[in-house]
Amino acid sequence: MENEIFTFIARYMTLSDEEKQAIVDLSVFRSYPKGALLLKQGEHSEESYFVLKGCLRSYYIIAGEERTTALYTESESFAPACTVTKTPSEHFVACVEDSLILISTPALEKAMFEKCPRFETLCRILSEELLAKQQVAFDTFKYLSPEERYVHLLETRPDLVQRVPLQYLASFLGIKPESLSRIRKRVTLKVPSSSSAALLN
Amino acid sequence: MENEIFTFIARYMTLSDEEKQAIVDLSVFRSYPKGALLLKQGEHSEESYFVLKGCLRSYYIIAGEERTTALYTESESFAPACTVTKTPSEHFVACVEDSLILISTPALEKAMFEKCPRFETLCRILSEELLAKQQVAFDTFKYLSPEERYVHLLETRPDLVQRVPLQYLASFLGIKPESLSRIRKRVTLKVPSSSSAALLN
Repeated sequence: MENEIFTFIARYMTLSDEEKQAIVDLSVFRSYPKGALLLKQGEHSEESYFVLKGCLRSYYIIAGEERTTALYTESESFAPACTVTKTPSEHFVACVEDSLILISTPALEKAMFEKCPRFETLCRILSEELLAKQQVAFDTFKYLSPEERYVHLLETRPDLVQRVPLQYLASFLGIKPESLSRIRKRVTLKVPSSSSAALLN
Repeated sequence: MENEIFTFIARYMTLSDEEKQAIVDLSVFRSYPKGALLLKQGEHSEESYFVLKGCLRSYYIIAGEERTTALYTESESFAPACTVTKTPSEHFVACVEDSLILISTPALEKAMFEKCPRFETLCRILSEELLAKQQVAFDTFKYLSPEERYVHLLETRPDLVQRVPLQYLASFLGIKPESLSRIRKRVTLKVPSSSSAALLN
């Protein structure tokens, strides 16, 4: 399981044997079945997630309805806002698929930084990268029309369209489920059948 | 000018005299008039911004139209995505008001971290906080209706409603300008006149 982490970190820095050992010693892995809840609205939590395998979704319950706002798959990390604000969580986190997650907490991070100070630099760089990526995603969401958002998702994350049930994708894209069905039909009709198959596979 | 920075950092850590001196030595302040462009689409840039006074907006030009996606005011910082991706910027950054900005670059950050390693911890914590704040803003944008987004802005950032021209606010809220005008009239009619005045002042 550590191998996925080592491969991910290798994009940023070459790990020494001591650093690899610190990761092995301080890593907490958990596996969850599809549908498992990792965090509930109203709960306090200090746990951040790094997805090794599977898919997590963050959702709110608004007027009795689930509204999925974020999805995380392999090599994506996610610190729920409550871990930073120290207030009860306003949303839920659940597994869309059977998932293997690396858990982090402030105490584990502190121990990691003490053993290997370079990890703090890594965490800073990762946070800055995530922030830029999220800003682009938010900007794009604002200036694209609902149909353009769906096409953009097909082009940039075709795997999500395959893996995630349509009702979760709809609110993730800020589209009503019935509108998303119409958009899907329109988009499939527009693109030539071979490209359409490529987009949808 | 350093005082605003010291006050901001004091929320997170108590600075020693040497650390304060490092800030004074390594800080780059720039003042810009209203309307000035700090970054253009297609340009490369390494500069991040911390707003000491004034207001910045980030916008895209889509089909010939400006689409404002983000606004930054006092004590807010912003690293355009191009500073992380090292690719040409996809958006513009301009001053909504006369502004005083603290500029940061990777070289200045490196020098700062070398002089005061605690600043790297500070930057990591700030990035993690910003990430959580931005995630909540993105989630909220997704699950609120356009009218609810406007009311939420009135409640949480009444200063923006006062300071930022309506056409910028409209695309920032993902609303067409004509719809925002209708929403504003509806909202003003709904709330009792005293609360309405309080909301709008």
